[in-house]
This record gives sequence, C-alpha cells and structure tokens, in this order.
Amino acid sequence: MKKDLPACPVETTLMLISDRWKVLIIRDLLEGTKRFGELKKSVGNISQKVLTANLRSMEEDGLLTRKVFPEVPPRVEYTLTETGYSLKPILDSMVDWGVTYKEKMGK
Amino acid sequence: MKKDLPACPVETTLMLISDRWKVLIIRDLLEGTKRFGELKKSVGNISQKVLTANLRSMEEDGLLTRKVFPEVPPRVEYTLTETGYSLKPILDSMVDWGVTYKEKMGK
Repeated sequence: MKKDLPACPVETTLMLISDRWKVLIIRDLLEGTKRFGELKKSVGNISQKVLTANLRSMEEDGLLTRKVFPEVPPRVEYTLTETGYSLKPILDSMVDWGVTYKEKMGK
Repeated sequence: MKKDLPACPVETTLMLISDRWKVLIIRDLLEGTKRFGELKKSVGNISQKVLTANLRSMEEDGLLTRKVFPEVPPRVEYTLTETGYSLKPILDSMVDWGVTYKEKMGK
C-alpha cells in the first residue's frame, strides 16, 4: 500500500472500489474462494488482461490474497482478506438500493 | 430513464453511481440543496463541463432535481430526490469502511 489516502473516507473507499469490475469481483468473492477461470465466468464480459490487472491492484491494496498451487496446470485461487470481506455491508446496501430502484422504475 | 437496467441489483447501483464524481456530488447534496458554484467548490477539482454532464445524467436518472430561479444572474439549485437521498446508507457504509481502512493502514 504505497498510495496516499485522501482525507475524506468516502474518497478513500472510492479510490479502492470505484472501478465497477472491482465491485463485481468483490460481489463474487464474498461467496467464497474462486479460481481465476471461475471469476472470469462469474464477473462476465471481462477480458483476461483487465481481470488480471484488477486482481493485482486489489491484492496490493490488501483486499484479497492470491494463492498458487504448484500443480500441472497451476491452480490459482483468490480469497478476500478480512479487509476485503469487511466491504460486505457496502455491497449489501447496494443490493438493497438496486432492488428498490428497479422496483420504482418498474423494470 | 431510458436505459435497460441490469439483472443484478449491484450492477444497477453501479451503473448509476460508479462514477466517482457522482458519489462525491451525492455526498455533498446529502447536506442539503446546493447551487452550482457551491457544488463545484465542495466536490473539488472538477471542471465545469464534467460537473454539468454528471448533474444532467443524475437528473435523467431521477437522483436529483434542478431548479432555475429567474434572477439576474440566474440562480440554479440542485436537490436530491427521495431516490437520491435513499443512497445515504451506501454512503454511510462507505464512510465507516473508509475510516476503518485508513486506521488499519495507519494513515
């Protein structure tokens, strides 16, 4: 973690999860540990390059861990850290709000 | 509201507020109605063009209302709608998380 964090906590949170892919990665890892290929499928419409870049940045920010198993072919698993998992209430609020908004808009 | 909403409520929420500027605009309007110039100052480092584009898109999405007072010079005020205001729990979770994260990282 080398970045300077903004004074405002909302900006700090945004800096770490404002990318929509990151939020979707967190949504999917909240279900439990996933392999790279599983994440790629569950996040949907994300390229291998972009997924790798996001996972690397989230690892640097302490949101998830990457574990490589020396098998053939190598198995790579991603798991949320305690800090990453602590984002659950934000995701839960987003689910609630999204559901209500969709109801209001009649979609 | 002409966009089709994604099936996943998290994606719906992200579609509306994934832009970091939008979250900062909501943060500032949660305090109450603001004029364009006040918002520009409180959001910080945002150009007039980008602020206008974000406010327009948020108005179309039903998150805020724009009221023009026929004065000289014209006064324009922005206020969150009930839907916009209902984002408060998400922002509150983001504040809590940001504060805790900063403490953990010792910043």
